[in-house]
Amino acid sequence: MAEAFAFRSIGVVRSPFLEQTGTPIQPNLAVGVEGTVELDAAYIDALVGLEGFERVWVLYVFDRAAGFQKTVVPYRDDRPHGLFATRAPARPNPIGVSSLRLLSIEGATLRVGDVDILDGTPVLDVKPYVPAFDAFPGVRAGWLDEQRVRARRADRRFERGVQGEVANTPRQVHGHHGSQRRGRARKGRS
Amino acid sequence: MAEAFAFRSIGVVRSPFLEQTGTPIQPNLAVGVEGTVELDAAYIDALVGLEGFERVWVLYVFDRAAGFQKTVVPYRDDRPHGLFATRAPARPNPIGVSSLRLLSIEGATLRVGDVDILDGTPVLDVKPYVPAFDAFPGVRAGWLDEQRVRARRADRRFERGVQGEVANTPRQVHGHHGSQRRGRARKGRS
Repeated sequence: MAEAFAFRSIGVVRSPFLEQTGTPIQPNLAVGVEGTVELDAAYIDALVGLEGFERVWVLYVFDRAAGFQKTVVPYRDDRPHGLFATRAPARPNPIGVSSLRLLSIEGATLRVGDVDILDGTPVLDVKPYVPAFDAFPGVRAGWLDEQRVRARRADRRFERGVQGEVANTPRQVHGHHGSQRRGRARKGRS
Repeated sequence: MAEAFAFRSIGVVRSPFLEQTGTPIQPNLAVGVEGTVELDAAYIDALVGLEGFERVWVLYVFDRAAGFQKTVVPYRDDRPHGLFATRAPARPNPIGVSSLRLLSIEGATLRVGDVDILDGTPVLDVKPYVPAFDAFPGVRAGWLDEQRVRARRADRRFERGVQGEVANTPRQVHGHHGSQRRGRARKGRS
């Protein structure tokens, strides 16, 4: 039923954040933080015209995430939520999407602001941010509209080998993926 | 240098669009078009809480795209642009991102509006749309701010086997990937 797809990184993110703990959890909490998106030199020609855009979407791999959890306690709340109702890294396909400020382009390297991404993160794609396609300022945002925790920075809860400590909900114990994962995590920590 | 990553589809998009020709090229041109995102039943629990969000990001595979082109003539212009300055499917990693209106959730099926995605498209991820993270209404959008073509629907230019007909720029002839691709495309059509 599930189809498999192979993707290859086209570059890497360089940022001041060497580990999850302390990394801003979204670009709007990383205003002023600069980094680079260093694409392979083969992609220089494919960047022509991108300099006219103020922001870019960067798609990347959460390469240090622990694996899929059906239910998570996200950084912004103290209650569990279904994974797809969050932006947590514990996704079936651990792909992250961040809208970063584009400061300049030199060769195949983008200098970017509002960086909320770990140093060394593999990049899958760069797309222009287009307000007509992407900006919906007023829309409802579920539990985030009644946010209870003022967390601004990540901790280790989604890191490989430590996730069992956090997302400890009944739902996970009975879930298929959940129980697999938990088993593996325990092994890793023993 | 490039790292490989294997992803698996977690579901499929159902939409009225059976082929690229005639498909709206962005969600804001597909207002009123309804479809479904049918996730595998294993993901039901992971959807808890998503119903409170008005829009969702759907990440999917452009599974009928022809392959990477460094330079493309996008639907919205008559001039060539670097691939990364466009949202065209001809990406090194053919991953699409669309912000769809979330109408309802039943089981593991999301009923969605503003669908600009081909029927049968494999889904990689669903994320909540969060205005605080995602909405930047006023930002500059390069060549799209001075858009010269009023195209609203796709044609076959990014379809497998026909791309050589369109993106016929000098840059591509000399480019490494470009020339490979053109060769393959020609073979496919002869």
